[in-house]
Amino acid sequence: MSLNTFGHLYRVTTWGESHGPAIGASVDGCPPGIEVEEAYIQRFLDKRRPGQSRHTTQRDEPDRVRILSGVFNGRTTGTPVQLMIENTDQRSRDYSGIANSFRPGHADITYHLKYGIRDYRGGGRSSARETASRVAAGGLARAVLKVLAPEIEIRGYMIRIGEMVIDRSRVDWNEIDRNDFFLPDAQAVPAWSDYLRKIRKNRDSVGAEIEVVCKSAPAGLGAPVYGKLDAGLAAAMMSINAVKGVEIGDGMAAARLTGTQNADEIAMGEDGPAFLSNHAGGILGGISSGQDIVVRFAVKPTSSIMTPTRSIKTDGTPTRVSTRGRHDPCVGIRAVPIGEAMMACVLLDHLLLHRAQVGENPGGSIGLGP
Amino acid sequence: MSLNTFGHLYRVTTWGESHGPAIGASVDGCPPGIEVEEAYIQRFLDKRRPGQSRHTTQRDEPDRVRILSGVFNGRTTGTPVQLMIENTDQRSRDYSGIANSFRPGHADITYHLKYGIRDYRGGGRSSARETASRVAAGGLARAVLKVLAPEIEIRGYMIRIGEMVIDRSRVDWNEIDRNDFFLPDAQAVPAWSDYLRKIRKNRDSVGAEIEVVCKSAPAGLGAPVYGKLDAGLAAAMMSINAVKGVEIGDGMAAARLTGTQNADEIAMGEDGPAFLSNHAGGILGGISSGQDIVVRFAVKPTSSIMTPTRSIKTDGTPTRVSTRGRHDPCVGIRAVPIGEAMMACVLLDHLLLHRAQVGENPGGSIGLGP
Amino acid sequence: MSLNTFGHLYRVTTWGESHGPAIGASVDGCPPGIEVEEAYIQRFLDKRRPGQSRHTTQRDEPDRVRILSGVFNGRTTGTPVQLMIENTDQRSRDYSGIANSFRPGHADITYHLKYGIRDYRGGGRSSARETASRVAAGGLARAVLKVLAPEIEIRGYMIRIGEMVIDRSRVDWNEIDRNDFFLPDAQAVPAWSDYLRKIRKNRDSVGAEIEVVCKSAPAGLGAPVYGKLDAGLAAAMMSINAVKGVEIGDGMAAARLTGTQNADEIAMGEDGPAFLSNHAGGILGGISSGQDIVVRFAVKPTSSIMTPTRSIKTDGTPTRVSTRGRHDPCVGIRAVPIGEAMMACVLLDHLLLHRAQVGENPGGSIGLGP
Amino acid sequence: MSLNTFGHLYRVTTWGESHGPAIGASVDGCPPGIEVEEAYIQRFLDKRRPGQSRHTTQRDEPDRVRILSGVFNGRTTGTPVQLMIENTDQRSRDYSGIANSFRPGHADITYHLKYGIRDYRGGGRSSARETASRVAAGGLARAVLKVLAPEIEIRGYMIRIGEMVIDRSRVDWNEIDRNDFFLPDAQAVPAWSDYLRKIRKNRDSVGAEIEVVCKSAPAGLGAPVYGKLDAGLAAAMMSINAVKGVEIGDGMAAARLTGTQNADEIAMGEDGPAFLSNHAGGILGGISSGQDIVVRFAVKPTSSIMTPTRSIKTDGTPTRVSTRGRHDPCVGIRAVPIGEAMMACVLLDHLLLHRAQVGENPGGSIGLGP
Repeated sequence: MSLNTFGHLYRVTTWGESHGPAIGASVDGCPPGIEVEEAYIQRFLDKRRPGQSRHTTQRDEPDRVRILSGVFNGRTTGTPVQLMIENTDQRSRDYSGIANSFRPGHADITYHLKYGIRDYRGGGRSSARETASRVAAGGLARAVLKVLAPEIEIRGYMIRIGEMVIDRSRVDWNEIDRNDFFLPDAQAVPAWSDYLRKIRKNRDSVGAEIEVVCKSAPAGLGAPVYGKLDAGLAAAMMSINAVKGVEIGDGMAAARLTGTQNADEIAMGEDGPAFLSNHAGGILGGISSGQDIVVRFAVKPTSSIMTPTRSIKTDGTPTRVSTRGRHDPCVGIRAVPIGEAMMACVLLDHLLLHRAQVGENPGGSIGLGP
Repeated sequence: MSLNTFGHLYRVTTWGESHGPAIGASVDGCPPGIEVEEAYIQRFLDKRRPGQSRHTTQRDEPDRVRILSGVFNGRTTGTPVQLMIENTDQRSRDYSGIANSFRPGHADITYHLKYGIRDYRGGGRSSARETASRVAAGGLARAVLKVLAPEIEIRGYMIRIGEMVIDRSRVDWNEIDRNDFFLPDAQAVPAWSDYLRKIRKNRDSVGAEIEVVCKSAPAGLGAPVYGKLDAGLAAAMMSINAVKGVEIGDGMAAARLTGTQNADEIAMGEDGPAFLSNHAGGILGGISSGQDIVVRFAVKPTSSIMTPTRSIKTDGTPTRVSTRGRHDPCVGIRAVPIGEAMMACVLLDHLLLHRAQVGENPGGSIGLGP
Repeated sequence: MSLNTFGHLYRVTTWGESHGPAIGASVDGCPPGIEVEEAYIQRFLDKRRPGQSRHTTQRDEPDRVRILSGVFNGRTTGTPVQLMIENTDQRSRDYSGIANSFRPGHADITYHLKYGIRDYRGGGRSSARETASRVAAGGLARAVLKVLAPEIEIRGYMIRIGEMVIDRSRVDWNEIDRNDFFLPDAQAVPAWSDYLRKIRKNRDSVGAEIEVVCKSAPAGLGAPVYGKLDAGLAAAMMSINAVKGVEIGDGMAAARLTGTQNADEIAMGEDGPAFLSNHAGGILGGISSGQDIVVRFAVKPTSSIMTPTRSIKTDGTPTRVSTRGRHDPCVGIRAVPIGEAMMACVLLDHLLLHRAQVGENPGGSIGLGP
Repeated sequence: MSLNTFGHLYRVTTWGESHGPAIGASVDGCPPGIEVEEAYIQRFLDKRRPGQSRHTTQRDEPDRVRILSGVFNGRTTGTPVQLMIENTDQRSRDYSGIANSFRPGHADITYHLKYGIRDYRGGGRSSARETASRVAAGGLARAVLKVLAPEIEIRGYMIRIGEMVIDRSRVDWNEIDRNDFFLPDAQAVPAWSDYLRKIRKNRDSVGAEIEVVCKSAPAGLGAPVYGKLDAGLAAAMMSINAVKGVEIGDGMAAARLTGTQNADEIAMGEDGPAFLSNHAGGILGGISSGQDIVVRFAVKPTSSIMTPTRSIKTDGTPTRVSTRGRHDPCVGIRAVPIGEAMMACVLLDHLLLHRAQVGENPGGSIGLGP
């Protein structure tokens, strides 16, 4: 996991700046013979795309992905798959004001301090636009998973925006794609919509919390001790722009529990071990147990707000910064398909790692027979 | 970061099982010419060592580290440093009962499902004993940091055990080493002590939350976008046994904030930018800003408890498991020096990465002159 | 160095097939602030480009490189540099005959056996066209080296084509770019030209041997024991299409020498150690000594020849294959700029590695003073 | 392949200095469930061990390997295997003379220039003693290969010492272990023995050339384009102390051939493709073809000779160096088991890589049926 690459065997290298000619992902290590076409990957990009609703930025990018290599006659060849998305709506004039000043909460100042140079147009490399490349790579990962582990189902959804929280008893995955918020509860939509309209009207923004779940992941994924599945997921989610916390299973709340409360007791089910609870979020000792894998992460409020905040210029003089560009009042919304993509990439990576070390058959078995 | 190795340039590979002949860390990439001796590293191991107080396991290991390579005449040579700790008090009889059954909440079952074989003695590779190797590698990292970035100060401390939480207004780093809990508040010690005694008496265990802070870290550490400093810290902390959540700065709470609340405004200080708050935890866009780097993580309650819990045997038959061995009622306590060690390793790694790409002089500067 | 990536810190990932829409190199880890423009990189591509003379394939690709990311206002930003070359003259009809048969000496059969699918158009990923991406990445590496180690000079040249060998006493680097063969001897050109014309007329091809030298490389590059400079150069050169042997210094001939013959004795020069010979090719124990770094490699004859050779089809039936497409009678000629590019990338990579571990100042010095 | 680690998935990190307390190899990624014991690995170490005959150094090390981790009840567990060899016969007094001077042809001067410090006792990390760790890791790799690819046979043997060359027509693998030179020809032994005695008597040393062959390697190993099997073998062999050249198949001689001479024509055999020759050395496009994999490498003469050679001291003053310690007149002899070990590690690594990407079943097949 070095600089702009993640993954051990399904290796994704993303490149590109917000306002350069294009962005993309070079995916190396993809298994051969997998059916995939641009339209399949495009579906996931369309979910992440800005300009979808009034709650996400009005920038109107078609975000059209092109497969430049690694696919022949509709199937992967085992060579690197280059996924490119051209930047078509760049409007760099919007950002001219920030060339010499730093937006509070943004990477402007740290890029300047590190590199001594930064592509300030639209945040350059630090723009959330980079995540489109992840979603493309995640789409390809899903195509592979459909073949190697067809039972797997990956879903992300919003569980909190600022003060609004979901009602766990009403979660229905079928609702997620039917609203602008990836909310798993149709009834909550109007209230969330009002809340966000108020935020926007206040020239403000707000944070969010996303949960990503993988159902039916095979047991045995993850490699102790620094290749742990949860360590990989933590790095993957924390690498998403604006993410400030990552939880597996009970997450931070585990600190409040006692051992008896936390114990996921084990019984024998019809086709293997059946856990009586899932505080662990499907991962024990860094290895998947066969239960649902549950990850949550928090996204901070969009830093680019229209309310002026105190800052400095590159020459050290004080200034006030307020953003006029097109920005999401809640970047967290778009983080849902991104989190799903990272989950897909990490799981596929560990599936390949497991196949390398242990082979295609499960390592151990738990006796069911006579 | 692959399997049992972490770090890009300061690369730590740990090895060894709880009840094998020895455990250790192979550290590759250490800068040459650094003064270091076993006694210096031993100091950190002594802090992590079990048998220190009645609140940690009574296993009595001297945990004596030996430097087998990479140091000559008291200075590192630039070649791999092998840090070995022999296991002297193994008592494998304590664990004979668990050879054919799985402790709930433990890695027993996932190792079995993955590998089809596991060293069940003391948890084998999944034992918290592995973390002694990390602490040794972290001790060496500190010796290097003392030379390359002497201003850096790294401290970890407990902020929560179960229901007990620290009072932020009373935090005093000078107190941390004066009590059994790494508590930064002398006055809180008796209550925490009582609380933990009660937990133990109930044959139970409890979770914990640790905060690790790095003061005076240079700006510019971290490399977007998958080599982000916070992504590295998240993986490092999540890879510690029993950790279920990691936060940077405001962490999960960032989801509840608005953009105006969250904005760390910037002013100009005497020797560089001065932020007016630190919601970001010292990291923007994956790069350190020069503010305090603040990481928190939650450790779940010790899974090995004396209260019987339902489980199954390797042949699938039901059983009840209760642990008779020596175990901490709160493994989280020992996680404090471990968290510090991981922080030290990650920061050194990024310091070397930065020096590689950008050189020894800061990339950018912010005007202070005439 | 995994699959389609090479380098530790200056990491080059190439992608693309001979007859897909484009090929390219994603370069990660490039230092920031380096002046570079497309025209500078283009210069090196133009040297490798087919269609230059009658001795290389008549395929007429402009091989125009585009910088899609990582460069802003003419300087690198420290983020990934995407170098893309569109394929404009693809003529896939030329290759239709080989879709179901294997060209002897080619990767056709091994790709088929490994992946079960291959992009047969022009050799797909195994085409020498991939090397254009290396040359682009090497051009960028040279731009960085000009800043970090301006004294370095890298030159490659032909020393053998089949039976023709250079006369070492007549080597003149100024001649290299003045002929079609990268020959460092003007006088030899007519004879080589005749020889190659005869090869082509015989519907045959021929092998070649290339030498690449780096003058004024700083001492101290290379990291024992698996990061040795010579191990890196060996992998880099052997990874070039059709290369079958790599030598450092005396190379294979070292097996014939005695220790007294081979000893590179050391004297003290005006500004450091002065070796009295260079059998070692500038590398001792995997680390550069400050002498010229000397690498040679052998390129086998072009496998695609117009003379029919026995082979089989994918269904196992026998066939005879002869190539009708446009092919070099000696691919070795174009390997000269490729070898230079690999040398540039490897040296820069080790320069960054050294800076990371040891810093910008030399590790040791050898006394010159009173 | 970074610094002291090689391999992608079967990752070997070696550590230790010639005269430190111990040396060893940390092997990560080993498949679980493989039967292995110390005695099996010891067999390979005994072949490499000095003090075997009058032709290798008289240093008398038992070179006893201990397995410190990763093996439980005689089988690998999938966790890191630590292989340690204690240094028992160190006699550091022998080397006191070289603390302040540089042996020509040795890494003394380059370690000094790079790191500013070196463990001069016995060459420290640059000593050929490091190769014992490789042989141990190779022994473990062989145990795994016996299970995953039992048909594979790996053999190395001498083909040249100085002026003495083998007669290819007399090669008999059964003879290799019956003489002190790993010579595949019993009849040649007396002449080689005389030759080497003369070299030693002249206080000189001599180079050697070793060939390592893998019979019955499966087709499909190797991953284009920088993970090519031949690139991996080249790096592996070049990383062995004193190696100056590596060849695959026809090697450097390929430069002298024409395409018609070099073409390995293909017929259909009883159970797959049958090549009519093997100029390629079993590798096409970086992927194994199913033919014998043939690698050769040249080892330069031992640099430590008893004949005085001109050199300088660390303070720059001139000196003459002659070695009094125990040294092989031909280090190349011991390189035979080392070359075999590297071949075993590289092949296993690629076997795991292939299993990861393509799975356990062959990618493609070539029609044999109706």
